[in-house]
Amino acid sequence: MNIHNDLDGMRLALQWAEKGLYTTSPNPHIGCVIVRDGVVIGAGVTQPAGQDHAEIQALKDAAQRGHDVRGATAYVTLEPCAHYGRTPPCCDALVRAGLGRVVCAMEDPNPLVAGQGLARLAAAGIEVSSGLLADEAYELNIGFFSRMRRQLPWVRLKTAASLDGMTALHNGSSQWITGAEARADGHAWRARACAILTGIGTVKADDPQLNVRAVQTLRQPRRIVIDSRLEIDPGAKVLAGGGTLVVAAVSDHEREAVLRDRGAEIITLANAHGKVDLPELMRELGRRQINELHVEAGTKLNGSLVREGCVDELLVYLAPTLLGDAQGMFALPALTDLAQKRALRFHEVCNVGGDLRILARFMDRP
Amino acid sequence: MNIHNDLDGMRLALQWAEKGLYTTSPNPHIGCVIVRDGVVIGAGVTQPAGQDHAEIQALKDAAQRGHDVRGATAYVTLEPCAHYGRTPPCCDALVRAGLGRVVCAMEDPNPLVAGQGLARLAAAGIEVSSGLLADEAYELNIGFFSRMRRQLPWVRLKTAASLDGMTALHNGSSQWITGAEARADGHAWRARACAILTGIGTVKADDPQLNVRAVQTLRQPRRIVIDSRLEIDPGAKVLAGGGTLVVAAVSDHEREAVLRDRGAEIITLANAHGKVDLPELMRELGRRQINELHVEAGTKLNGSLVREGCVDELLVYLAPTLLGDAQGMFALPALTDLAQKRALRFHEVCNVGGDLRILARFMDRP
Repeated sequence: MNIHNDLDGMRLALQWAEKGLYTTSPNPHIGCVIVRDGVVIGAGVTQPAGQDHAEIQALKDAAQRGHDVRGATAYVTLEPCAHYGRTPPCCDALVRAGLGRVVCAMEDPNPLVAGQGLARLAAAGIEVSSGLLADEAYELNIGFFSRMRRQLPWVRLKTAASLDGMTALHNGSSQWITGAEARADGHAWRARACAILTGIGTVKADDPQLNVRAVQTLRQPRRIVIDSRLEIDPGAKVLAGGGTLVVAAVSDHEREAVLRDRGAEIITLANAHGKVDLPELMRELGRRQINELHVEAGTKLNGSLVREGCVDELLVYLAPTLLGDAQGMFALPALTDLAQKRALRFHEVCNVGGDLRILARFMDRP
Repeated sequence: MNIHNDLDGMRLALQWAEKGLYTTSPNPHIGCVIVRDGVVIGAGVTQPAGQDHAEIQALKDAAQRGHDVRGATAYVTLEPCAHYGRTPPCCDALVRAGLGRVVCAMEDPNPLVAGQGLARLAAAGIEVSSGLLADEAYELNIGFFSRMRRQLPWVRLKTAASLDGMTALHNGSSQWITGAEARADGHAWRARACAILTGIGTVKADDPQLNVRAVQTLRQPRRIVIDSRLEIDPGAKVLAGGGTLVVAAVSDHEREAVLRDRGAEIITLANAHGKVDLPELMRELGRRQINELHVEAGTKLNGSLVREGCVDELLVYLAPTLLGDAQGMFALPALTDLAQKRALRFHEVCNVGGDLRILARFMDRP
């Protein structure tokens, strides 16, 4: 593949970044390609946490293929890091390797980096620039940016509904409102999340596994169940394999012990109404390095999350059907004035199989 | 403008057809362009009923501009008519003018034409073909085709809702859920319809004018109010200017006389439940040469029309907002099994201002 200009180079780097979409968490997924005279001589993507960043992978790739990177241009989807984390600073490696130019899509929002990587490169005589295809780079790591800037995960709430906005019949039936393609697409969104959250209502009604099945992934997101009164059945599928986080509003040592035997972790975060303190949970998940949180819950928890300002965007699959008198998407109190409505903006709409996929963001979000 | 091939020619003819979108009813809006050596030498669109068809307009245009059409190619969005209606047959005019070739988008579904136009042209030695951009030509005259093939109007039900499928608050507030662009777009759909239908509930709640205001038009669609018990206030705006059709399920000579004084026409079409017989009304509107019927009603009438199989497509404007506990789009009885759901297919989705416009068709429709 020939790289005719910086746009080509960054587009290819973004494609490399995407390869890490399911695996690099809690690190961002970054792509790097090294180009000399229009030819790609090295490429890489962030490896799972503790291993190589994209730049190091790209340098190793070039070396392995016998290419000299001195004077070449590196396209990186995020500013190279300038600090010692689990790995040494990438900007130093780029300087040592003798790169001539480094083009970044964005500066690193991590306060430990924040422009220092670019500054160190420039100080070493490397030509640097930043901002090319920044929107695309932001979208790929929206959760990482959220956590760096707000200390909160990016919360994406997924729901599937009929064209008239109904998610389930009154008898609870909700399977197969949308088609197979939409369900597989939903699993791809699960796979990129650090954690998947649901409520005890959904666990009781559907007994979901809450894992990624329809797409290939080496990493399963953490599972989280909101269960104010610790009612979860220890045999629930969501606990299988261990590692599930159960968030309660009460303490019950006996029940907690049973759940711990099932490999679950239990935390208690009560608000003044005896329910789980959802905003505090979001802060806790930020501290636990959850970048993207994927919510698949029922009408009630959906409504509580929206009402308490915990949701950043809605991922809505609309099926071409009408259900009429049935269960809606969000249990929200009736408004008395249209001026009170919660405003979003449509970010992206596309067809997925016979269904529509709508991504809508709350207006008060970045 | 140069015409390089038949596709160019037909695209231009379709653009001419669109110029008649608001005016030709109950005739179809047809475009015709005449091309010689890649140059457009004449073009026309169907004039209001009783006046010239598109082919005659195009021939006159060519003559007025001093062009000789002998041997030229005519692109017509529908097969030229072969019968005497309010005007003489267009195919005879094309033969007399000496056209060399006639390319049509579709055959005329009118049983009085149905292939005879093309046959007459071919018999006169003119090269004919049909089927180019047939889908586009069909969409432009979907109501006319519906009436010719099914003796029924094409029924388009418009609704505006929040992303969670709510059309109004419980207190009835429904103004301005969608933005100004969506409202103007809705008026363009009103303008192309032969009639606009609403229910007494909407008349009581909103007192709408039910006419076209946000776009320019020389013709106002007929207004129709479903009013089973003849409850309409004689001062209702929908009666202003006369010509409104009130459809009742009861007779009340006194009230009817008052409404007739307001210029309204009253018909009584009761079903066994004392409500207006909606399927019979659709047949009546077909007999009255209504091609496209535009419905803007409330939850109840929307639900009845869908339930009784009277709706062909939904025109849904979705606003990027959540209303929560409010009024839904369709009052439909609760299903007990998802297999009973009414299936549609998404025909077209686009952004209109900040809102989404979704056109969805019932699967059992053509």
